[in-house]
Amino acid sequence: MNRLHKIAINLVFLLTTCIAFAQEKIIIKNTDDITQDATAYVLNKVQNANSIKGSHFFFEKGVYHFYPDKGLEKFCYISNHKDVFVKTAFPLIGKKNIVINGGGSTFIFHGKMIPFLVEDGNNIKIKNVEIDWATSFHSEGKVIDKDLKEHTFDVKFSEEYPYEIRNEQVYFIKEYYEHNLGQTILFDEKRRAVAFNTEISTPISTKQKGTVQYQIESINYKYTQDRKDLTLRKIGLKDRIKVKEIKPGVLRFYNHKKALPPIGSILTTKGAQGENRVAPALRIKNTDSFLCQNVTIFNAGGMGLIAENSSNITLTNLVITPSKGKVVSTTADATHFVGCRGKIEIRNSFFENQLDDAVNIHGTYQEVVNVEGKHTLGIRMGHHQQEGFIIGKENDTIGLVRLDDSFSPYQTLTIATIKVINSRYQLITFKEEIPAVIKSGDLIENLSAYPEVVIEKNTFRGNRARGLLLSTPKKTLVKDNYFHTEMEAILIPVESGKWFESGSQSNLTIVGNIFEDCNHGGHSRGLIRLVTDDDNQNYAFSNITIENNIFKSFDNLILEIANTDGLKFIGNTILKTETFPMLYPDNPAFRIKSSRDIIFHNNDYKGNASQIIQKDVTIGELSFQ
Amino acid sequence: MNRLHKIAINLVFLLTTCIAFAQEKIIIKNTDDITQDATAYVLNKVQNANSIKGSHFFFEKGVYHFYPDKGLEKFCYISNHKDVFVKTAFPLIGKKNIVINGGGSTFIFHGKMIPFLVEDGNNIKIKNVEIDWATSFHSEGKVIDKDLKEHTFDVKFSEEYPYEIRNEQVYFIKEYYEHNLGQTILFDEKRRAVAFNTEISTPISTKQKGTVQYQIESINYKYTQDRKDLTLRKIGLKDRIKVKEIKPGVLRFYNHKKALPPIGSILTTKGAQGENRVAPALRIKNTDSFLCQNVTIFNAGGMGLIAENSSNITLTNLVITPSKGKVVSTTADATHFVGCRGKIEIRNSFFENQLDDAVNIHGTYQEVVNVEGKHTLGIRMGHHQQEGFIIGKENDTIGLVRLDDSFSPYQTLTIATIKVINSRYQLITFKEEIPAVIKSGDLIENLSAYPEVVIEKNTFRGNRARGLLLSTPKKTLVKDNYFHTEMEAILIPVESGKWFESGSQSNLTIVGNIFEDCNHGGHSRGLIRLVTDDDNQNYAFSNITIENNIFKSFDNLILEIANTDGLKFIGNTILKTETFPMLYPDNPAFRIKSSRDIIFHNNDYKGNASQIIQKDVTIGELSFQ
Repeated sequence: MNRLHKIAINLVFLLTTCIAFAQEKIIIKNTDDITQDATAYVLNKVQNANSIKGSHFFFEKGVYHFYPDKGLEKFCYISNHKDVFVKTAFPLIGKKNIVINGGGSTFIFHGKMIPFLVEDGNNIKIKNVEIDWATSFHSEGKVIDKDLKEHTFDVKFSEEYPYEIRNEQVYFIKEYYEHNLGQTILFDEKRRAVAFNTEISTPISTKQKGTVQYQIESINYKYTQDRKDLTLRKIGLKDRIKVKEIKPGVLRFYNHKKALPPIGSILTTKGAQGENRVAPALRIKNTDSFLCQNVTIFNAGGMGLIAENSSNITLTNLVITPSKGKVVSTTADATHFVGCRGKIEIRNSFFENQLDDAVNIHGTYQEVVNVEGKHTLGIRMGHHQQEGFIIGKENDTIGLVRLDDSFSPYQTLTIATIKVINSRYQLITFKEEIPAVIKSGDLIENLSAYPEVVIEKNTFRGNRARGLLLSTPKKTLVKDNYFHTEMEAILIPVESGKWFESGSQSNLTIVGNIFEDCNHGGHSRGLIRLVTDDDNQNYAFSNITIENNIFKSFDNLILEIANTDGLKFIGNTILKTETFPMLYPDNPAFRIKSSRDIIFHNNDYKGNASQIIQKDVTIGELSFQ
Repeated sequence: MNRLHKIAINLVFLLTTCIAFAQEKIIIKNTDDITQDATAYVLNKVQNANSIKGSHFFFEKGVYHFYPDKGLEKFCYISNHKDVFVKTAFPLIGKKNIVINGGGSTFIFHGKMIPFLVEDGNNIKIKNVEIDWATSFHSEGKVIDKDLKEHTFDVKFSEEYPYEIRNEQVYFIKEYYEHNLGQTILFDEKRRAVAFNTEISTPISTKQKGTVQYQIESINYKYTQDRKDLTLRKIGLKDRIKVKEIKPGVLRFYNHKKALPPIGSILTTKGAQGENRVAPALRIKNTDSFLCQNVTIFNAGGMGLIAENSSNITLTNLVITPSKGKVVSTTADATHFVGCRGKIEIRNSFFENQLDDAVNIHGTYQEVVNVEGKHTLGIRMGHHQQEGFIIGKENDTIGLVRLDDSFSPYQTLTIATIKVINSRYQLITFKEEIPAVIKSGDLIENLSAYPEVVIEKNTFRGNRARGLLLSTPKKTLVKDNYFHTEMEAILIPVESGKWFESGSQSNLTIVGNIFEDCNHGGHSRGLIRLVTDDDNQNYAFSNITIENNIFKSFDNLILEIANTDGLKFIGNTILKTETFPMLYPDNPAFRIKSSRDIIFHNNDYKGNASQIIQKDVTIGELSFQ
């Protein structure tokens, strides 16, 4: 073989290699026949995308509509959502090395669709796109009048929110969807944020007890039932609130339980809890390496992003904000992570006006039902929004937990296999024998499925509920963020009885953040709050550092600490604002119980609290510095 | 090798062969730890059943309970049912050569379970078992009083039917389930059958028009929507009927639209149409060779048996009857067959008091939406209870139908592949090119998926609706059966606009049957009725023979014929009964339109009709003989 021949062979090899590894580029053109309903066209391209070499989808800048009629349908168990059939044009399922580059386009979805459905993927990137729906999953109207004597109030809805009144109940009619009044909260139009002290007026109590019952008590169940599931929860409740149309677009609300809402405030409604989370914008499951960059989400029937059992998720320049003068963006959390591992990074993002938390990161507790043989446990999902969730995979370390005794597992086991029997019940087989001490009602959590977290340079504002909910023992950094939230800016919980969200936060650093008038919704809570719902003195949290932050607050309570072993509060500045009247002037600045090794050092307190630190007997000498 | 050695080797071979082909026998013991909830135990055995050699499950005689809590969950698109997640202990999926022999046992199911879920099977037999539910999917109470002035009536429900009244609406609460009033009909307790002339009192109109609407008309859809689907159908309707508890167990019904029901009659209720068919007793799909023998079904939340896309189904000694003094058995059809082929045989069976037809055999029409390339059609399911139905398989012959022009296909095509996009929309690729004349709105039907039928020596009585609905062009024999049904004993339809059930019956012989006081519910219809819902003079039905039957009827109309080319009515006896007063004394005995080649011969008419035959101009000379 001569030299030329050799070079030729090498060239051929090189070319073949390049082609083999080159990501296929698919350009979607901004033409009428595509944009008017891009669903079938895009779906076909996505389903045929090369899953080995990978595919780069590039959309010419434009407005693309997606309708469900020709969308791929898939049933999804989605954590913290209703389990639903949804339709999508982007089933990124079992795909590798995919880039969806919107090229600055706007994607308008119609009805119960999931814009991006990512499952069993690897290296998936979604970039440069705005996501909105033709009709929103919520409705909003302005409070224009009230009658103190009759205790009624009137709300005006614009033509954007068609409704129908059936038997004194209002139903907001959307494209392919409708919602009843359900969950409500007030917004302040000027501040473009949840209204101050909304909790005295909302949520509206739509239901009340007092049905006529006959022989209901004769129905007994052999096994534990979730009385809050979508069937059983109806029992014993009837409609409380009644509405009447005063003139087209104006509804009068009768039989409201709480204080009348202020005139000028915006009443937002999204339908019944459990029924109203049907179409998150991004659903990520069993996926490794996911990037979301320069994406704007204006609305969603649920969360902006829900990630489950995935690893290494990066969100950068993700914007969640209302569209077209509305006050509400997504109808649930901006982002939510369940059972994720590796690293979660959220940077340079802006989450505002969504109807639930900005970020929630946790694992799951599942309940032990029975022992099936030496190695197998029957376990049960506690919450109906965790139906179908699979806690882990082979070789993951499962902790057996009895929260009455300790927040830490009393023993660990290694997963061999998991067999899903139904949405509530699974059989988990372990490599080791099940310990004899186990009993039904014990919990399991996956110790292998907690992520490291970096949340840096983001803005969290205007939304209902919390900023961050953190429940991972791994290294967590919350740095240089801005918070203006209705409830706690940062909540560190251990919660087992209602949501079954696991994870005892440790190794957390909160540094360089600005907290401005958080927790203005009406609750008496700390802006940062470490709390367990188990009334004991065990330690749940450790190695917490809160350093060099600025707390600007209209009210007193800054930090609540419970069940914590080791917390440093150093170099922080606390300032009093006049944005709102104080709600709880008797509160201290710091409330501490069942904790040890709590250090205050080098802080600058310019607040109003007459008592700086309030603590229980478990804590020894402690001075604010 | 000596002779003994050879014999030994042969023996070993023989034994091995026998073992290899012997069906494994699995005995389920009647012990407390199994029978109290047999679900997990049986499920495990069924899932591990040998699918090649086959398995014979034998239950020791006893009462076995099955609970959903540990049942296998599966989502099922079920034709003519709600598409649901159901649980089962018998997922006979992808199995061959299975016998389930109940050994005379009773299986009691709890909640939304499918007792036997048979899919993708071959040679499946279910024998010697009684199927019931712990709490029924319907409710029934006795009309005990009425007030003519206030137009109210009172119904007493026994302790077996717990209920709750929420905002003047009654909800019947079951184990794991509830139903509202929804669909209702009266039964006659003494006759153990649907009440005479029930149609003047029922169904109760639970809904009425007259909602307050705002901007609803602004919601426009790009594509055709099914306004009867479970979301859109709510628009424009509110509750009409109101109930009030007079004393425990006794409900007064206000605002009833029709005549008050007779005192002493039994009001049965099963919840809203579309929501109330969630758990048929036997679900058979994509299965060849299914036998059901000596099986009794006392109740089901839906049909007794629903078979789809299956072939060679034999039902023998199948009994469908109410349990424990109830008047209702299954809440929908006794049996129903969609897109089946081969042979359907129903013999020596007894179907009574179910809330819909005894037997319905048909194919499906699907609507042409668009042409996608030379060989591919986008098609759409017309009815929401056909969602997910796949019309055929490779090499099946599909007919293109335009019913305005003809009941017969204008062209046929051969299926290559079917791609399911969503529950309403599929892409069917054909081996031939799509003809240019096709247009959206045309229908397709599968000409390969019609069965031969034998229905012999059965009793059909006491139920709501029809006896037989037949829509197959293949040879069909209806012989030696007894009919006592609320509507037509035998309905031969072509129906495209509502249910999208295809098939123009031909080659039908109805011989040796007794029809006794059928169609007593109140409609003016023939006991046997050939009818199309397309108002044209084309021929849909041919080669029909009705011979040597006995019609005993309180009313005049015996036979209605339309769009028929060739019908012989020979050797039949028509007798007048005094069971009920006549409802339509002016009706003829025979009504014929748009037909030809109709022959009456050798019949014995002892009825009351002053006009024997009423016919339109399409038919020439015709005399009753």
